[in-house]
Amino acid sequence: MFITGLPDLLIEPIIRDALREDLGLAGDVTAQAVIPPNARFKAEFKARKAGISAGIDCARLAMSLMDPQIRFEILLPDSSAVNPGDVIARVEGKARAILAGERVALNLLCHLSGVATLTSQYVRTVEGLKTRIACTRKTMPMLRGLQKHAVKCGGGYNHRYGLDDAILIKDNHIAICGGVGPAMERAKADVGHTMKIEIEVDSIAQLKQALPYGPDVLLLDNFSLDMYAEAVALAHDPSLGGKTILEASGGVNLDTVRAIAETGVDVISVGALTHSAPNFDIGLDAV
Amino acid sequence: MFITGLPDLLIEPIIRDALREDLGLAGDVTAQAVIPPNARFKAEFKARKAGISAGIDCARLAMSLMDPQIRFEILLPDSSAVNPGDVIARVEGKARAILAGERVALNLLCHLSGVATLTSQYVRTVEGLKTRIACTRKTMPMLRGLQKHAVKCGGGYNHRYGLDDAILIKDNHIAICGGVGPAMERAKADVGHTMKIEIEVDSIAQLKQALPYGPDVLLLDNFSLDMYAEAVALAHDPSLGGKTILEASGGVNLDTVRAIAETGVDVISVGALTHSAPNFDIGLDAV
Amino acid sequence: MFITGLPDLLIEPIIRDALREDLGLAGDVTAQAVIPPNARFKAEFKARKAGISAGIDCARLAMSLMDPQIRFEILLPDSSAVNPGDVIARVEGKARAILAGERVALNLLCHLSGVATLTSQYVRTVEGLKTRIACTRKTMPMLRGLQKHAVKCGGGYNHRYGLDDAILIKDNHIAICGGVGPAMERAKADVGHTMKIEIEVDSIAQLKQALPYGPDVLLLDNFSLDMYAEAVALAHDPSLGGKTILEASGGVNLDTVRAIAETGVDVISVGALTHSAPNFDIGLDAV
Amino acid sequence: MFITGLPDLLIEPIIRDALREDLGLAGDVTAQAVIPPNARFKAEFKARKAGISAGIDCARLAMSLMDPQIRFEILLPDSSAVNPGDVIARVEGKARAILAGERVALNLLCHLSGVATLTSQYVRTVEGLKTRIACTRKTMPMLRGLQKHAVKCGGGYNHRYGLDDAILIKDNHIAICGGVGPAMERAKADVGHTMKIEIEVDSIAQLKQALPYGPDVLLLDNFSLDMYAEAVALAHDPSLGGKTILEASGGVNLDTVRAIAETGVDVISVGALTHSAPNFDIGLDAV
Amino acid sequence: MFITGLPDLLIEPIIRDALREDLGLAGDVTAQAVIPPNARFKAEFKARKAGISAGIDCARLAMSLMDPQIRFEILLPDSSAVNPGDVIARVEGKARAILAGERVALNLLCHLSGVATLTSQYVRTVEGLKTRIACTRKTMPMLRGLQKHAVKCGGGYNHRYGLDDAILIKDNHIAICGGVGPAMERAKADVGHTMKIEIEVDSIAQLKQALPYGPDVLLLDNFSLDMYAEAVALAHDPSLGGKTILEASGGVNLDTVRAIAETGVDVISVGALTHSAPNFDIGLDAV
Amino acid sequence: MFITGLPDLLIEPIIRDALREDLGLAGDVTAQAVIPPNARFKAEFKARKAGISAGIDCARLAMSLMDPQIRFEILLPDSSAVNPGDVIARVEGKARAILAGERVALNLLCHLSGVATLTSQYVRTVEGLKTRIACTRKTMPMLRGLQKHAVKCGGGYNHRYGLDDAILIKDNHIAICGGVGPAMERAKADVGHTMKIEIEVDSIAQLKQALPYGPDVLLLDNFSLDMYAEAVALAHDPSLGGKTILEASGGVNLDTVRAIAETGVDVISVGALTHSAPNFDIGLDAV
Repeated sequence: MFITGLPDLLIEPIIRDALREDLGLAGDVTAQAVIPPNARFKAEFKARKAGISAGIDCARLAMSLMDPQIRFEILLPDSSAVNPGDVIARVEGKARAILAGERVALNLLCHLSGVATLTSQYVRTVEGLKTRIACTRKTMPMLRGLQKHAVKCGGGYNHRYGLDDAILIKDNHIAICGGVGPAMERAKADVGHTMKIEIEVDSIAQLKQALPYGPDVLLLDNFSLDMYAEAVALAHDPSLGGKTILEASGGVNLDTVRAIAETGVDVISVGALTHSAPNFDIGLDAV
Repeated sequence: MFITGLPDLLIEPIIRDALREDLGLAGDVTAQAVIPPNARFKAEFKARKAGISAGIDCARLAMSLMDPQIRFEILLPDSSAVNPGDVIARVEGKARAILAGERVALNLLCHLSGVATLTSQYVRTVEGLKTRIACTRKTMPMLRGLQKHAVKCGGGYNHRYGLDDAILIKDNHIAICGGVGPAMERAKADVGHTMKIEIEVDSIAQLKQALPYGPDVLLLDNFSLDMYAEAVALAHDPSLGGKTILEASGGVNLDTVRAIAETGVDVISVGALTHSAPNFDIGLDAV
Repeated sequence: MFITGLPDLLIEPIIRDALREDLGLAGDVTAQAVIPPNARFKAEFKARKAGISAGIDCARLAMSLMDPQIRFEILLPDSSAVNPGDVIARVEGKARAILAGERVALNLLCHLSGVATLTSQYVRTVEGLKTRIACTRKTMPMLRGLQKHAVKCGGGYNHRYGLDDAILIKDNHIAICGGVGPAMERAKADVGHTMKIEIEVDSIAQLKQALPYGPDVLLLDNFSLDMYAEAVALAHDPSLGGKTILEASGGVNLDTVRAIAETGVDVISVGALTHSAPNFDIGLDAV
Repeated sequence: MFITGLPDLLIEPIIRDALREDLGLAGDVTAQAVIPPNARFKAEFKARKAGISAGIDCARLAMSLMDPQIRFEILLPDSSAVNPGDVIARVEGKARAILAGERVALNLLCHLSGVATLTSQYVRTVEGLKTRIACTRKTMPMLRGLQKHAVKCGGGYNHRYGLDDAILIKDNHIAICGGVGPAMERAKADVGHTMKIEIEVDSIAQLKQALPYGPDVLLLDNFSLDMYAEAVALAHDPSLGGKTILEASGGVNLDTVRAIAETGVDVISVGALTHSAPNFDIGLDAV
Repeated sequence: MFITGLPDLLIEPIIRDALREDLGLAGDVTAQAVIPPNARFKAEFKARKAGISAGIDCARLAMSLMDPQIRFEILLPDSSAVNPGDVIARVEGKARAILAGERVALNLLCHLSGVATLTSQYVRTVEGLKTRIACTRKTMPMLRGLQKHAVKCGGGYNHRYGLDDAILIKDNHIAICGGVGPAMERAKADVGHTMKIEIEVDSIAQLKQALPYGPDVLLLDNFSLDMYAEAVALAHDPSLGGKTILEASGGVNLDTVRAIAETGVDVISVGALTHSAPNFDIGLDAV
Repeated sequence: MFITGLPDLLIEPIIRDALREDLGLAGDVTAQAVIPPNARFKAEFKARKAGISAGIDCARLAMSLMDPQIRFEILLPDSSAVNPGDVIARVEGKARAILAGERVALNLLCHLSGVATLTSQYVRTVEGLKTRIACTRKTMPMLRGLQKHAVKCGGGYNHRYGLDDAILIKDNHIAICGGVGPAMERAKADVGHTMKIEIEVDSIAQLKQALPYGPDVLLLDNFSLDMYAEAVALAHDPSLGGKTILEASGGVNLDTVRAIAETGVDVISVGALTHSAPNFDIGLDAV
């Protein structure tokens, strides 16, 4: 399936593990005891809040893994703006299978929609500005791919997916390596031509040290608004190349994000998008 | 390791998967490029908020899986009340290994401490009453065991771990099965002698239907305070056996939880403990 | 599939592993050498003894995992009483696939039918009494779920599925914990409201110690018939609550089981159901 | 470890899976509730019957996987003749860890010792004759390697480990392939030079058809004693090469096995060794 | 699928792992960015060299794992002689899915066709002689089954699949064991009746030592042509039984292989077939 | 371990799988039969050709997984120039364990050293020029990380590790997307700020189309030398920004690579480094 995001090949093992975690050795003892084997069930995944949906493929896979004969119709694909009462998907099939898969389906759908919804709040807050909102690597184990997909559903952008897809030189690296210069030089000597180099700086002085080495991205750690503005002036100066991307990070919340964006930084990264998004309320209602 | 909770055998695969998710195929390209192979690093896991810590075994395993020679000293075991600046653990070893494992260690430690901290807020709110705070199955995939451990660290209690360890007859089961009576009878005929039967009721009338079948637990779904009180009166009536456990559920938050507890229900279950706990801020600071 | 027991999601990995164990790296070298790729085969799973069948889903999955196009028709679902010559299922498809999957299909079907058949012998022996026959955790690795399903097919009941779904305080726990009282108190303080507490006692004196703590179940270890009767009198005494379930265990066999049941114990648990059930003879005969 | 059989690399995943099956998500809830984290325990694996032990590595690994600091001393390695009261191994360490691993350790040790003991009964019955007792592929999923090891501990020999390590042409192969001749010819044309060819025959006539093709082994299916004797005369006739190995199979039990062996067949294969061996009683006793 | 070789059950996990290795956490970021979700694509797997094809099932599975709705038509099954421009298979379906699976499909198809093609060059070089060309255990991790299948596609034969399916006593075994005699005797006492015994000898003297023990196969290590001829004379001497298979090994290449074969050895084993086969060029061309 | 490259956490599962592939169910039947359990063995990994070594961690892990008590001393770490007779590592321990792990250790060490050696030949051929030699995604399943590590050992650089770590727009993407312009625009709108965009062009005209969109890298597919030179002139023109990296690809071999490099392209990518590197001959010799 390629309709709304990642291929099933990447999502299915997560859903399979989650279902097996919930089923244990005995399976759904309640359904086995009280639901006749052939009883059927028809229900709707219905939003109970307003926000952005994400993760419907997880719900679909939870159902099809329980029973491939369950019919699953997606009415509102990922990235949809939903309102209370909106039906995101309809499901119909054997009651035992649907009820056994319900919790796993909802757990992921509600969490990912929570991530998308929180992201969209940040994105709307900086509307009209060129600054992008990005997530971080502060994610739940094995959910990084799905959470980053949800961030995109909410209008955000993705930072590194892991330690392996870009160089990001942080304060500890710089300290151990003996300074910004040696770190940048080693990175440039080692890195392949398809990978970017980002370096974290915590002051304008350090930013000035780093700029001449031509990093692709500068991570501005916990700058004040004035410092962000000065960083923009320096890094985007056309006479100096002007192509370094500036990422602001640290102390960002819905109250501060617009002011930071107005300084002209290119990207603001927000850990809360993935580590502190409240659950988005969606229910499975019988019809 | 059996100091603070689950055996390593259950936690290690989660940490291993999380590290591999973060390392990808190439590993930590930054550390490989800029950190000399034998450079050493010493750091502290330090709280930046007040709360209850949980998940230090995850951080320990993240380090030992990266390099078994890393020294890891736990100063504050799980369930500790921590304050900003408190050192939870110290780590020392090869810089490449520690820096590569840092994010996974923090992601779990911060999340689980967040769960424990939120739980403890609920528990403190009902202090002095006999009502217990319990979590639900609204958990992150593959983290159920760890999240439920964190709930215990925060002073809470665990509900079912999965579909397999207790019968819980919900509204849809009752509807499909043809009523409370048939559902309870089938459950009692099927269930083994080591498993409890819980049934959800959404009205006093339904509670009265269920009580004569002797369920171990009654799940009171979204009752008003008056209804909770009436349920307590009925279910705890010694002349009727009086041993049915009453669990309140639905619409519970930190503002409403004490009033519900004061009605005399035995347990209040709260999905937010595991699905909406904000991250607890802990950092890894070089020393 | 939810016709006769556990969801395929739980069984399939076992069958997949078993097939891969049997196929090794080279696959079925005999069939590859001597059977033309498109040759077809039609056969019947036929009972060669009288007993109770269990595990037909395992045979079905062994076939469909070898080739999803194999047709598999179940004539006698699990829990059926079968006689020599009875056809349990019919299979038709590519000969190479069916012959390669045959041994794995039969190994599980014969073993599980053996468990169901032995269980049914115990159950019939206590016919007319209210005592239930239950299995234990003395199972084969990774087969616990299937073996416990087979016990149910034979008319038995399930004990704990694992260390995680009920408290069972045994002699060693009591000794280390410092007695029945401290053990029961700790258990009650720790356990969630959906989990039962069982405690093992090896004498009437110890039973009397335990009863006031209100354990859900008492495990009577190797009692004499007189002791069982006395235990029943004490534990089922309505003036003392009378709701404690009594489980007899130890030294149970087909010769002794009825006399034990006649003492009035609620449950008799029998390790042999899963650890010593002789294979039930079923063959795959070409038609 | 290479003391008594298979490398740990092959056994460990089985023990790990079995422990995780038993621990579920919550782990050993009893020990967590009632055993202090640092309480220690010392115990002995003690035989309660006479027989041959096998599988002590499984018990050792169950303990070391629960806690690598548990001390495990093997007193009687696999293949030992044991008597009631004999101590097979001693274990000492944290009580929580030992008690949590006890059931898995015993399940495998008792089952494999049961296989070794039953095998040794067959082997002793044919004592003094050159005939070997061999097992079959009628094994429990994922336990084939361990069960075949147990057969060797009992003095038996191993047949094929899987479909992949020897050609075994059975009745259905012959029928589909169009006779003994075409089947033998195809097998010889396809097979590598390190693999043997065995063919099943169900009559002396069919044996005579097969012999000229020079199969390495002839499987004599359900022959009478006279037929076995005639088969020996034909297949071991030095003027015909005389090197074909004869394997008797079908209807073998402890009452019939010696008479079959006395006909001079080289091997008697017995499915019951692995599919119907009764559990061998070993306990873990506190010391 | 059983058309051209191993069952899908053995191949699928390899393809699944390879696809997941290539997709990482984020999937195919290029296709997600630039290809519309429903765009379709039609292409051909086309040979760009002359040789023998092998591994088309890998390409088929790569496609069906990305999207089960992709149509995949095999025009030239494994073992086909192909020429530049020949279409081996046609594929049609969603562009995102096909392009994401393309590299994995080609990597295996090109490698295995390379193995088959190199094997066929050896086989053609010894055409008309009875000597067989065999591969070794010098294979890529997890690809042994597929590489050995490719060797068969090229007209070669398979040696052992692993350490477990035949005894092969090498120089180090002989040295540690104390000579050819003790090694052969121990092997014969231990081995089951369905397994062959091969022993390596590095001189005619050692061959003479080994022959009386009746090994099934003699591995002649780095013999000269004269030595090979003498070995044949000795081992195939009908008065000595004459049935020992002779395998030549070491220093074999396309220039030397025919002369070695002409000495009359039965088998020549060539590590290069699997460890040094150059990639066979096949492309996926849009149509 | 972080001495010479990837963390053990990434390599160990590959070695474990490879050992289990080789050991099958029965393990090393030869060593079990003929080597006394406690016999010891001492040997050296010795080069038999001149080249660059890579993969010694694989050999080390193969040994420690067979028996953690094997002593393994690395004399020549990865990236060493080795000559015939050079000892790369010494091993000492139980003979059964070392001999069982030998083939897996050598298979990976020889293959990866083959990759490093071939890479170094390319690198030496362009010595003195600024052009880098890079590998591709034409790798063996599950070995991508190790092969790319070997390329670095040989002095080469890494291209993308997978579909997920950079945008690479190829001919088919351009065609389906409707041209270079739309493809570049969609990519820039979708991609995160830490990821590069590369686009393939097959003509100077197409290169001119692409340049204004500011791709990070241009993949020049099968250009002539003149075309490469023209591409360099255009893409490195300081007045146009001059920062686009040029990668030459297609038809590269040891005879053509220097001339291509002399055109001034930044990177030459060579599939053969990983898909056609001949095995490098290393033996394990008893000492």
